[in-house]
Amino acid sequence: MRNFIYYNPTKVYFGTGVNSQVGEIVGGEFKKVLLLCGGGSARASGVYDDVTASLRAAGVDFRECAGVKPNPVVSKIEEAIGIIKREGLEAIVAIGGGSVIDSAKGVSAGACYDGDVWDFYARKTKIARAMPFFAVATLSATASEMNCTSVIINEALGVKTGLTDNALFPRATFLDPSAQFSVSARQTADGGIDAICHVMETYFDGTTGVELLMEYAEGLVRSLMELIPAAIRNPRDYDARAQLAWASASALNGTTWAGHSGRGDFASHAMGHTLSVKYDTVHGESLSIMMPAWMEYVRADNEYAFTRFARKVFGVISPDDEASRGGIAGMREFFKSLGAPTRLRDIGVSKEDLPELADMTARVPIGVLRKLGREDILQIYRAAF
Amino acid sequence: MRNFIYYNPTKVYFGTGVNSQVGEIVGGEFKKVLLLCGGGSARASGVYDDVTASLRAAGVDFRECAGVKPNPVVSKIEEAIGIIKREGLEAIVAIGGGSVIDSAKGVSAGACYDGDVWDFYARKTKIARAMPFFAVATLSATASEMNCTSVIINEALGVKTGLTDNALFPRATFLDPSAQFSVSARQTADGGIDAICHVMETYFDGTTGVELLMEYAEGLVRSLMELIPAAIRNPRDYDARAQLAWASASALNGTTWAGHSGRGDFASHAMGHTLSVKYDTVHGESLSIMMPAWMEYVRADNEYAFTRFARKVFGVISPDDEASRGGIAGMREFFKSLGAPTRLRDIGVSKEDLPELADMTARVPIGVLRKLGREDILQIYRAAF
Repeated sequence: MRNFIYYNPTKVYFGTGVNSQVGEIVGGEFKKVLLLCGGGSARASGVYDDVTASLRAAGVDFRECAGVKPNPVVSKIEEAIGIIKREGLEAIVAIGGGSVIDSAKGVSAGACYDGDVWDFYARKTKIARAMPFFAVATLSATASEMNCTSVIINEALGVKTGLTDNALFPRATFLDPSAQFSVSARQTADGGIDAICHVMETYFDGTTGVELLMEYAEGLVRSLMELIPAAIRNPRDYDARAQLAWASASALNGTTWAGHSGRGDFASHAMGHTLSVKYDTVHGESLSIMMPAWMEYVRADNEYAFTRFARKVFGVISPDDEASRGGIAGMREFFKSLGAPTRLRDIGVSKEDLPELADMTARVPIGVLRKLGREDILQIYRAAF
Repeated sequence: MRNFIYYNPTKVYFGTGVNSQVGEIVGGEFKKVLLLCGGGSARASGVYDDVTASLRAAGVDFRECAGVKPNPVVSKIEEAIGIIKREGLEAIVAIGGGSVIDSAKGVSAGACYDGDVWDFYARKTKIARAMPFFAVATLSATASEMNCTSVIINEALGVKTGLTDNALFPRATFLDPSAQFSVSARQTADGGIDAICHVMETYFDGTTGVELLMEYAEGLVRSLMELIPAAIRNPRDYDARAQLAWASASALNGTTWAGHSGRGDFASHAMGHTLSVKYDTVHGESLSIMMPAWMEYVRADNEYAFTRFARKVFGVISPDDEASRGGIAGMREFFKSLGAPTRLRDIGVSKEDLPELADMTARVPIGVLRKLGREDILQIYRAAF
């Protein structure tokens, strides 16, 4: 087990009806806030109305910045920062899924900074101060509602990159599972795949002496594999939606990586991000393709974990070498059963693009279990084809 | 799954050598602190020297209040509050196990209050403000280092009771597993039993639609049942000590009860507290006696959980009714294998005392899965005899 610092100060209000408490909680401290939203699903589901009604009732004045896209871009963050500075706003209320909340984190950092907000993502400077922000989570996937990471695309540079800083935890998060009854089967699957992959990124990173955390991770994956289909079969099953939401938050809120090397491997995420930049691939689908291909490539580097995973999650009983392959095959089959793509060709990537994808991904070093150079990355894209 | 608020702002510095960071972290904010300690084991293990050296190096002045006892008493808390007020101290650094950290919470509340600190425990008033405090955890059991509960005995009233308030989270906790190499086999077992019972208090409380949390709880219990004997067999096994410490903290830091009814049942704890008040029974031993007796008494009220527990933790394959008994028997046998008492007669209680124990416990209502009145409680003590 490695040395670590565990820290997660976000207060989570979880359950039916919590969105109508937003005004009271936010209004206790702030009177003029920015409302950051996505493309309209929060309006359709009624969450937008609940939150704005509660803000009005609490006497909280708000300005709106809508239209954050699924693969969020830095230009939108700059737009929101502009509104905050012009209007002298005091805090941010983000209503949406991971894209909106990730964007809110960028806005939070940029609102208290005179330079270019991309400076933080480019590691040119550190966050000295961030504007308090609140999250109303309408989609369970990224766990952004309960961590301090923001993943953003810079369209001009063609880069998707993450920023992690303790200043970027939501002050509070409101999570009403019943607000997710209207989330489509496709989005439910994509979000669940993201959560499963978050757990696996940490699980397979090669840290030893963490059987306690492996037990926890295996339980999370087994649970997610029950909960995702349950929520798809019956979109209004409250307990399925609630447990899926909490499992997704738990998958990347710090509880899985305490004692691990950093936060996990995340090479699959890096290779998937390149797909999102180039083809606007949905995050979950970038992972259902790249994660199994990565697992096969690095399997021999962590035979213990890959074998254990196969046995504990899929009940595979064959000998070790075969078992570890069985676990990977099982994972790919599960993704397929959710209707997710598991090959690059499934999303229309052409074979000629692979060297460019490898070049784009290899701009920064990736991998923890195994450090991957451009040639490794190209081989994994080829295997994923 | 029930509505809940999840909140745990304690920053945990975990791993080898973290105790020498205490001065730097505390000194960043405070210059005159109270050092609250127990009976001398922190001196013997070297933790006291590491912490005081680091405070001196950081220019932090400290006054000391030593001698907190294993079943901590309110008179000691009053003594510490007196020192703080007399000397104008700014914060508290608690070095010890659950007793010292529980006491630090009382001191923290009382130091900012003009009345009697017992008012908080007697629910006569609420905490308006608490003094910041830091915990250096030297024993893993109660999870006090990572929650906001303080359990204290009022000697004059003959009552052991708990106080839970968000103001009572440690600002930061320092947890070096290697500082626990010198913890005796007996204390290691008692602490581990406490942690297992914390998980079970929540697990069996009768909440439905929380299979995700049941998976987590089962993994924690299975892990603890591996880690406790491992740490006893080889007291210097770092990974065993580290995982045991993190499992114990996780058992009562909020992660197990998110979505449950409150924080769990805790009737076994209440009946055990009476033993501690009357016979000064060590906390873990009060639980190894009372928990299995309670489980037998309420088994029929939650057949699903008791059967599931038997199957998932002990691998029992017999039919449901028999299986649920098997899980309880398995738990009692495990406690016995650690050398812990499992019957009241093992700790010298006489049969004539049982009605008085029931009277003492029944002063306040207990039980969540089943509300227990005096007659229930007496029957459980009889069964535990």
